[in-house]
Amino acid sequence: MVAARKKNPPHQVVIVGGGFGGLYAAKALKTANVKITLIDKRNFHLFQPLLYQVATGTLSPADISSPLRSLLSKSKNTKVLLGEVNDIDPEAQQVILDDQVVPYDTLIVATGAKHSYFGKDNWKEFAPGLKTLEDAIEIRHRIFSAFEAAEKETDPEKRRALLTFVIVGGGPTGVELSGAIAELAYKTLKEDFRDIDTSETRILLLQGGDRILPAFTADLSQSAAASLEKLGVIIQTNTRVTNIDNDIVTLKQGDEFKEIAAKTVLWAAGVQASTMGKVLAERTGVECDRAGRVIVEPDLSIKGHKNIFVVGDLANFSHQNGQPLPGVAPVAKQEGEYVAQLVRKRLRGQTLPAFNYTNHGNLAMIGQNEAVVDLGFINMEGFSAWLFWLFIHIYFLIEFDQKLLVMIQWGWNYITRKRGARLIIGEESLAFAKVDNSNDKSHYTSTNNRQPVKV
Amino acid sequence: MVAARKKNPPHQVVIVGGGFGGLYAAKALKTANVKITLIDKRNFHLFQPLLYQVATGTLSPADISSPLRSLLSKSKNTKVLLGEVNDIDPEAQQVILDDQVVPYDTLIVATGAKHSYFGKDNWKEFAPGLKTLEDAIEIRHRIFSAFEAAEKETDPEKRRALLTFVIVGGGPTGVELSGAIAELAYKTLKEDFRDIDTSETRILLLQGGDRILPAFTADLSQSAAASLEKLGVIIQTNTRVTNIDNDIVTLKQGDEFKEIAAKTVLWAAGVQASTMGKVLAERTGVECDRAGRVIVEPDLSIKGHKNIFVVGDLANFSHQNGQPLPGVAPVAKQEGEYVAQLVRKRLRGQTLPAFNYTNHGNLAMIGQNEAVVDLGFINMEGFSAWLFWLFIHIYFLIEFDQKLLVMIQWGWNYITRKRGARLIIGEESLAFAKVDNSNDKSHYTSTNNRQPVKV
Repeated sequence: MVAARKKNPPHQVVIVGGGFGGLYAAKALKTANVKITLIDKRNFHLFQPLLYQVATGTLSPADISSPLRSLLSKSKNTKVLLGEVNDIDPEAQQVILDDQVVPYDTLIVATGAKHSYFGKDNWKEFAPGLKTLEDAIEIRHRIFSAFEAAEKETDPEKRRALLTFVIVGGGPTGVELSGAIAELAYKTLKEDFRDIDTSETRILLLQGGDRILPAFTADLSQSAAASLEKLGVIIQTNTRVTNIDNDIVTLKQGDEFKEIAAKTVLWAAGVQASTMGKVLAERTGVECDRAGRVIVEPDLSIKGHKNIFVVGDLANFSHQNGQPLPGVAPVAKQEGEYVAQLVRKRLRGQTLPAFNYTNHGNLAMIGQNEAVVDLGFINMEGFSAWLFWLFIHIYFLIEFDQKLLVMIQWGWNYITRKRGARLIIGEESLAFAKVDNSNDKSHYTSTNNRQPVKV
Repeated sequence: MVAARKKNPPHQVVIVGGGFGGLYAAKALKTANVKITLIDKRNFHLFQPLLYQVATGTLSPADISSPLRSLLSKSKNTKVLLGEVNDIDPEAQQVILDDQVVPYDTLIVATGAKHSYFGKDNWKEFAPGLKTLEDAIEIRHRIFSAFEAAEKETDPEKRRALLTFVIVGGGPTGVELSGAIAELAYKTLKEDFRDIDTSETRILLLQGGDRILPAFTADLSQSAAASLEKLGVIIQTNTRVTNIDNDIVTLKQGDEFKEIAAKTVLWAAGVQASTMGKVLAERTGVECDRAGRVIVEPDLSIKGHKNIFVVGDLANFSHQNGQPLPGVAPVAKQEGEYVAQLVRKRLRGQTLPAFNYTNHGNLAMIGQNEAVVDLGFINMEGFSAWLFWLFIHIYFLIEFDQKLLVMIQWGWNYITRKRGARLIIGEESLAFAKVDNSNDKSHYTSTNNRQPVKV
């Protein structure tokens, strides 16, 4: 069907989303005889695996992001379009934006996932998750503002709540965040305050199941737990969160309920598919799973629409071992590349065997010199795992944008134990000083009361 | 008087403001037998001379800022207090914050300056100035969003307005901004767009007087103008701005009025003292000049209050040649150090001769390989000036926070001609796509002209 459309105006590929799935699909089509439009809400690709380092003050937003235009400037068949796709029309083969309509022959949807609070959306305000740069900056503000507010607080109980950090969810993000906050509190900031002792900071990592990093082997998960505890993180397994508000996290452990006074709560517990899943379901009748992910065919297309593909965190691909593939960068990358390959084949009237994910391993960073790596055929922990983690991430970053600088930054931070990116900026920069008055933000708003200017 | 207070509780020095003046005063008092409280609204010191590089996407905010706490962590006699000083009480010798009162024996006020729109405050919204990191990020958003909006714009006149950048003010900041935007438009972004040709960008630098960089010699100012024009900047001297609104800048040249359609207007024309000047005037009766700067005595104290000092951009020091010293970093630094020295002397019952500023020269960056340097005894231009500019700035940055990375970043950008820090983030990241509807911000609303989609 797609191949049959091959005519004078070149085959139009529309890719929605410039994350790993969408970007690698575009890159793999660079030399194909197609016209590509890559649509994203943002003007940059984000290297999400390092987002926690922005959140904890080691890296700057620009260190882990690259302008989509410059990443694709050499792909002369590719146009980057900034905008938000609100709808698709599979009959007319169009995606619909706020202000325009873009026709496609092949559509690749790669809009990823966002947090899920399991229906408790009111927790969001008190426990931000870590998916976007704005999230990372928000978390950075909260962490550093908590130390600042503690320095000013004279009531010992309130001070204790300000120095208590709760991380909900013991997957890689939760592990990486808690490890980084521990290094911050117990090493980086040790000398910086006069009225508080940052070694009194408490960092709690909560996990619903019976061990952290459940995607890793039991051995590695145990070793990660031991390393985190050595850093000072308190791990609570078999622990469910039943409520979060401005000051108190309520936990359930077995039949027992427990309250923890904590001013900073971070959410690393669950994700759900982006809203494009719902749009696709409504417009094409495709099925979604409970997390909102689109159930895809063995070739990553959707049922009844061979020219619409879903890749990355938005896709539920369960044809390999019955389980959906995990929402990680390598899956998205391989899926994007597979679809690009399939499009090329189809243009020549050929096809490809079903998609098959090659798992190169699981990685999680714990702290300076500490990580866990599960490659299937070999497991690593401690310093060697940390070096491996560093190597892999630098390799991927460099592939993108030759971000050698990030490597140098890490090297520098490693030597100096510094964290330079600790700025608290924006209108909220003094918010911690006045937690209680939620007055108006109007600063620039009304243009009504402007005076006519005499010439 | 101060020396007489030397008693058991150590002499309390309160410094308001962590810019060049305040920070260097604190550093110079590191080993003195005093207790210092440095109060700032922000948790970082900002290296303002490089702010334009954040605004034009070369550097990240964290590259030119350092946490005040870590800069002063080794100064055990110094406490950093985050907060805003609202008032002072010279009788009780106290500064008054939102939530607390801090007593002083010696007070050093170094709160700097902000933009001045010469009474036309409504221009601020259309023509942001460059004083804070938020300003720089706002300007960065405007510049990159203008190119993005131009790429989407089909009306040639509107597109031309989107590709027109007007910089008001031909001092160092205006020169640096216009040079950097020229490099961006004509070099960095050249390959990145598909529907616009960025070489059609117009960059206008407006100057009220008859030459740019009036603080430099006529030769250097002429050479700077030639270099800017070679880069593609259009310089208009003897030009006054009479109005700025969302789309149009109105100019007066001689007796002629002229309108320029421009979506991006940047303000680099004037500054006024921060509000602490007014507070000091009200509480102590000290005189301020027309720009709101506090008239200081030869020792930088204020009349009738030998233990209150004003340094940096907030001070009007005219005892050297009748003219107030310029509002630049070296003046603030030397003033801060002088006052620290004087406090040390007074504690021993001694004093110092009047403050005397040593001018090491004027510098302005024009673009890659181009700068102008006026050292008094020698002038430089072109590549040698550029190298000198680089050396001086790196020297100062390193003195602060060993920010070697910034040097490497420059080197890297120099080789690759890249600008990595081009992110458009925050709630406004898609604002450029809907320039014309100013009321609603909701992404999902404007469904008017869309066809109903059949399922």
